[in-house]
Amino acid sequence: LPSYHIVVLPGDGIGPEVTREAVRVLEAAAESFGFRLTTASYPVGGAALEAEDDPLPEPTLRACLQADAVLLGAVGGPRWDHLERSQRPEAGLLRLRKALEAYANLRPVQVPEALADASPLKREVVAGTDLLIVRELTGGIYFGEPRGRDQQRAWNTMHYARDEIARIARVAFTWAKRRKGRVASVDKANVLEVSQLWREVVTQVHREEFPEVELEHFYVDNAAMQLVRDPRRFDVVVTGNLFGDILSDLAATLPGSLGMLPSASIGGRVGLFEPVHGSAPDIAGQGKANPLAAILSAAMLLETLGQEAAAQAVRQGVRAALAEGVKTADLCRAGETPAPTEVVGQFIANYV
Amino acid sequence: LPSYHIVVLPGDGIGPEVTREAVRVLEAAAESFGFRLTTASYPVGGAALEAEDDPLPEPTLRACLQADAVLLGAVGGPRWDHLERSQRPEAGLLRLRKALEAYANLRPVQVPEALADASPLKREVVAGTDLLIVRELTGGIYFGEPRGRDQQRAWNTMHYARDEIARIARVAFTWAKRRKGRVASVDKANVLEVSQLWREVVTQVHREEFPEVELEHFYVDNAAMQLVRDPRRFDVVVTGNLFGDILSDLAATLPGSLGMLPSASIGGRVGLFEPVHGSAPDIAGQGKANPLAAILSAAMLLETLGQEAAAQAVRQGVRAALAEGVKTADLCRAGETPAPTEVVGQFIANYV
Ligand SMILES: CC(C)[C@H](C(=O)O)[C@@H](O)C(=O)O
Ligand SMILES: CC(C)[C@H](C(=O)O)[C@@H](O)C(=O)O
Repeated sequence: LPSYHIVVLPGDGIGPEVTREAVRVLEAAAESFGFRLTTASYPVGGAALEAEDDPLPEPTLRACLQADAVLLGAVGGPRWDHLERSQRPEAGLLRLRKALEAYANLRPVQVPEALADASPLKREVVAGTDLLIVRELTGGIYFGEPRGRDQQRAWNTMHYARDEIARIARVAFTWAKRRKGRVASVDKANVLEVSQLWREVVTQVHREEFPEVELEHFYVDNAAMQLVRDPRRFDVVVTGNLFGDILSDLAATLPGSLGMLPSASIGGRVGLFEPVHGSAPDIAGQGKANPLAAILSAAMLLETLGQEAAAQAVRQGVRAALAEGVKTADLCRAGETPAPTEVVGQFIANYV
Repeated sequence: LPSYHIVVLPGDGIGPEVTREAVRVLEAAAESFGFRLTTASYPVGGAALEAEDDPLPEPTLRACLQADAVLLGAVGGPRWDHLERSQRPEAGLLRLRKALEAYANLRPVQVPEALADASPLKREVVAGTDLLIVRELTGGIYFGEPRGRDQQRAWNTMHYARDEIARIARVAFTWAKRRKGRVASVDKANVLEVSQLWREVVTQVHREEFPEVELEHFYVDNAAMQLVRDPRRFDVVVTGNLFGDILSDLAATLPGSLGMLPSASIGGRVGLFEPVHGSAPDIAGQGKANPLAAILSAAMLLETLGQEAAAQAVRQGVRAALAEGVKTADLCRAGETPAPTEVVGQFIANYV
């Protein structure tokens, strides 16, 4: 039997509750689809800061590097907001992404007809949206040198090299071929040299390796506008680390709830899978958290390991739970009874 | 009589038609409110590239520096998109902003109840939105050094100095005092040193000079999200050049049409006033362009010159035109008859 070792990083706030349900579903999938699964939990983020004074302790990092995949809950919270940058939960996450060489962050966003009423956008603008944001995750201004500050000024460097751009472009074009065959590349080439190189390399990879995919270029300000005015025009959107941070959160507003949005960060040997939502400390520990984003992240994990049938079953389980009204409060309309986190996870595990 | 000299830069596409109407309204205001006005037109952008091979010819720049205010139409278009950065219409605009030391870009965005149906957002989310984006315009990654590229890589520098941040913060707090008393400062302080300095200086200016204003800090990804989920929570939003570029275009989608959004770029001796919309080459020269954004930019110009009563009259004229249905096609619903650009301008000039 194929056998996988998954490292689970529950993290902070609702992270532990939602990863618990995702693990439950993964274990059910292993039984039904005939593969072996072992899991081990390690501290990360604020939880690790409290326990070991480091948002990414050495044993956690070592375990991740040896795993077949990493499932993360959420990190951060107001408790740690006063700390300086390198001592914050977020610093652990950035170091982990870099260490795993997880350079491609994939965030699918769908607004099915049935859920369009929950969107802040008008139904006729948003219903049917189905896009995938591909964000470069280990380069750009997040990691560029020189960086620093003195008493009077501060500076960061937005930097990209050809091969960093080419490899993320390939990820985007490859996904477009499996989807609707269109890529929108986002930059600020009318102002920035680094964006001019971005545009040049994306154009070259397109011409030489993926001429059958349709490629369009957007300036980032216009892309932000179009994501709100006409989100259905997009299929795959590829962009750098900072623009991707902004645009993927923007796109995440389209369904109305963050509670169903998964993400995968891949490219190195080990992939990192996590819900898009944050740690939501205000509802932590109350059984109110929506586990679907974590469970759908687990589906992306299964897909990446080659267990596509299991991934499909998990997604069907999510659809079945929604169809039968087994859902947490954030997805309920007036009059519907919310199900606790655990009941949603159980339902999908049973289905699978 | 007070006397003002206005330099008009019609620019490209619909720029000439909309600035013509704005000048008509300015001249009517001069007559009614007792001040003298002289205007002179100069080429900028693509028009200047064609005529003089330079998107900001020396005589244009000299005239702007000697004017009391500059009114700009729009620059750019697909005809010049293949040119390299320094030879594009946009380069002229960036050099002009810098030369005028117009470091504060003000973009008010309103969604009155009556227009909420035109928004891509649901009425109950967007109706009543009334915010002001204050974007730093002459610093940050747009102008930071070092910048450049070689065959393999490219780099830009996001740089801010204390005094650049302090002066734009003061503009934001000052406007907040005249408005609802709230400032949202936007940065990425959980990742960037330059944003940490930003947050530090904004906090200090707030504490020392404007303690009566309410100040909140947002990460840029969250700000993008909140602008779509709950735009009414914002009053004044202050941010750096690049984040401001993205967020102000995002905010500009809220009313549904770009056709009514003005902007002012101030801070140096001479202010620059321009509609938010672009040059719209597809409808240029057909009398279809909506002149309201240019006319409302002229109102901001009048306000900045100290002619507040005249500015109010122009704004009332715009409301009257809308109320009587004198509006261009972009604002018409099915069944309404659009008025040509010139008729809208005439109506407001007569009203004033
Ligand atoms: C927490 C933060 C450092 C992170 C980022 O900016 O990448 C987050 O916003 C994200 O998008 O995953
Ligand atoms: C044309 C371009 C250089 C400009 C900018 O990025 O500042 C525009 O997008 C704007 O917002 O005025």
